[in-house]
Amino acid sequence: MITDIFPDVIWQPADIERTSLSIVEEFLRPLQLPPGEKAVVGRLIHTSGDPALAGQVCFHPRAVAAGVAALQRGCHIYTDVSMLVAGINSKQLSRRGGMVHCAVHDPAVAAEAKARGITRAAVAMERFGEKLNNQIVAIGNAPTALFALLGMIRRGLRPALIIGMPVGFVGAAEAKELLMQGEVPYITVRGTRGGSPLAAAAVNALLYLDR
Amino acid sequence: MITDIFPDVIWQPADIERTSLSIVEEFLRPLQLPPGEKAVVGRLIHTSGDPALAGQVCFHPRAVAAGVAALQRGCHIYTDVSMLVAGINSKQLSRRGGMVHCAVHDPAVAAEAKARGITRAAVAMERFGEKLNNQIVAIGNAPTALFALLGMIRRGLRPALIIGMPVGFVGAAEAKELLMQGEVPYITVRGTRGGSPLAAAAVNALLYLDR
Repeated sequence: MITDIFPDVIWQPADIERTSLSIVEEFLRPLQLPPGEKAVVGRLIHTSGDPALAGQVCFHPRAVAAGVAALQRGCHIYTDVSMLVAGINSKQLSRRGGMVHCAVHDPAVAAEAKARGITRAAVAMERFGEKLNNQIVAIGNAPTALFALLGMIRRGLRPALIIGMPVGFVGAAEAKELLMQGEVPYITVRGTRGGSPLAAAAVNALLYLDR
Repeated sequence: MITDIFPDVIWQPADIERTSLSIVEEFLRPLQLPPGEKAVVGRLIHTSGDPALAGQVCFHPRAVAAGVAALQRGCHIYTDVSMLVAGINSKQLSRRGGMVHCAVHDPAVAAEAKARGITRAAVAMERFGEKLNNQIVAIGNAPTALFALLGMIRRGLRPALIIGMPVGFVGAAEAKELLMQGEVPYITVRGTRGGSPLAAAAVNALLYLDR
C-alpha cells in the first residue's frame, strides 16, 4: 500500500476535515463573528489555507440569512466562470431544486463579446438578465461580470445575494467597493484577492449551514 | 448598454490583460527571476491578485524546461480536482495532443476510497499508476494526492514535472517540503496556501511560454 510509506499522514477524509476545522476554529475565535458569518469565514480560511483572508471578508448585515433562505427555496446559482461550477457542491444544491449556471462558453456569448469588444463574462451576466432576480449570483473571476451585474441592479434587478469575489489588479477592488455601497445583500473579499475556490466555498458554507 | 453605466471600467479583454500584466511586471522586477520562472510567478500573481505569493513559489532548477519540453511533445496532465480541469487552457493543450485527466468522480475510485478509508484524491492518483511516467501531474487541492504521488515516486515512478500546490492546514506544507527534497522537477507554493487556480495558472503559464 502506498499509504504505508507515510504512516504519519492523515489519509481519512473525515479526520482531515475535523483536524482542519479545529485549526481554523483557533483562527476564528478572536474575531467574535455571528455564527453564520463565522461559518462562511471559516470555510474561506479552510479552502485558501490563509488565515489572513479573514480581515478582508465583508458581509452585508442580511447576507447570510438571505443566502440561506434563497437556498432553502431552491434558488439557482449564476456564475461567471466554469471553475466555480466545478467547485460548488451541486449534490447539496440539487437536493433543494437549484442548479449552477455559467454561460461563458456559450458560442453566442463569445460572438457578442467579440462584436462588442467586451469580456464574455460581462456579456454572459447581461444575458442572464431578469433570471437573476431573487437568485444567488456568485462571481469568482471577472470584475467586469460584477460591474455588469451592478449596472443591471441600477436598472432595477434584485438578486437575493451576491457573492462578489472577482480577482485581480484591474477593477476587482473598485467593483467590490461599489458592491458594498449598494443595498443588495453581498459577501465579498475586499481588495485584489478573490477567486473561484473562495466563491465556491462561500456558496458551500451557506449550503452546509442549512444542513 | 450596461457598459455605458460605468464608462471608466476597462471592459476589453486585451486591455484588461495588458493592464494587469504591466502591474504584475512592477511586482516582478525586484525579484530578478530567470525568464521562464518569471512568466510562471507572474501568472500566479495575476491569477491570485496577491503579490505576496511570489516569495513562496519554489522551482526545481529544471522545472520550467522540463514542463515546456513535456508539453511540446504532447504530454497529458493528471490532476486531483475537477476545478483544475476547468481552469487549464485545454484548447492550447489539445493543440499539442495533450488532455487533462481527473478521476476523483469515478465511481470505482469512490468505492475504493470508502473501503480503504482514505481520500478519493489519493486513490485516484494511485490508480493513474504508471501512466504518470513522463507526464505532468498538477495537484491543486489534496495533500493526500501529493503524498500518494511521492510514495509512487519512491517506488520508481518518474513524472516529467509536478505542479504541487495542494492547500490547507493538514499535510499541505509537509507534503510540499517533501516534494522539494526529491529529484523530480517541481513547481510549488511553500506552506499552507495553494489551490486549483494557482495550479491551473502554472500549467497555463508553461503552455503560453511555448506559444
